[in-house]
Amino acid sequence: MKIDLTKKQYKLLIELISAGEFLVNGHKFKDYIDEYSDLEKYILSFYNDFYEEIKEEHIIEKKIEEKMFKYYDEAVKKEFNEKLAMILSSNELKNNGKSIEYEDVLDNSKKYIKEFNRNGFERLELNWNKKLEYDE
Amino acid sequence: MKIDLTKKQYKLLIELISAGEFLVNGHKFKDYIDEYSDLEKYILSFYNDFYEEIKEEHIIEKKIEEKMFKYYDEAVKKEFNEKLAMILSSNELKNNGKSIEYEDVLDNSKKYIKEFNRNGFERLELNWNKKLEYDE
Repeated sequence: MKIDLTKKQYKLLIELISAGEFLVNGHKFKDYIDEYSDLEKYILSFYNDFYEEIKEEHIIEKKIEEKMFKYYDEAVKKEFNEKLAMILSSNELKNNGKSIEYEDVLDNSKKYIKEFNRNGFERLELNWNKKLEYDE
Repeated sequence: MKIDLTKKQYKLLIELISAGEFLVNGHKFKDYIDEYSDLEKYILSFYNDFYEEIKEEHIIEKKIEEKMFKYYDEAVKKEFNEKLAMILSSNELKNNGKSIEYEDVLDNSKKYIKEFNRNGFERLELNWNKKLEYDE
């Protein structure tokens, strides 16, 4: 089967594939899924047909990866701050014997997001002295 | 231009595109990049040619998204623990006036990874009383 693509569509296609491959395989040392990277290579092998200029595969790959890594980084960063704020918020409410219903935790998490944006993570600590729940 | 694909390659292609699109647009409320989702829709529109069965686009999309979300979730989780451990390790060394060379921070971060795996994030806190560096 054939898929018809314009030059512009091909460009977007290799960008999306690169982002997808990065997501699936990028953070792994093992359990690397070859069939995805093989497909990426196959699609990239059409590059010179579309662009009528000879470029080496690894150069094209590197250029696209750099562009798509920005999205990966952004997504991970946003999730990091939100998840961390929810954990701290929930710990705080629990320590004070308050409700940890989702809405309450979310509301209380906003001050942590503000803190991260203002001061970073400088005041983040692990309280090694805190008794764990199941120790009691 | 045309790209020739087997049925198997098409399956892998729509999975990678879906993962890529999820990475680029999935966590956004604004700055949504339409050209990537338009391309995803275009490639998905070939589904019935490859599979010779009529399936609605949003059902296919949903099925693939579920599969690829697993990878997204895994990547984000792994990065979360590692980044958090590095922050806590660096804060601790800084508080104690010790070196915060990358290797030292990394070494010291291992006990935090162990703590997360054993006890979760129960003892994580924000020390609101800690004076910020630039306040001094």
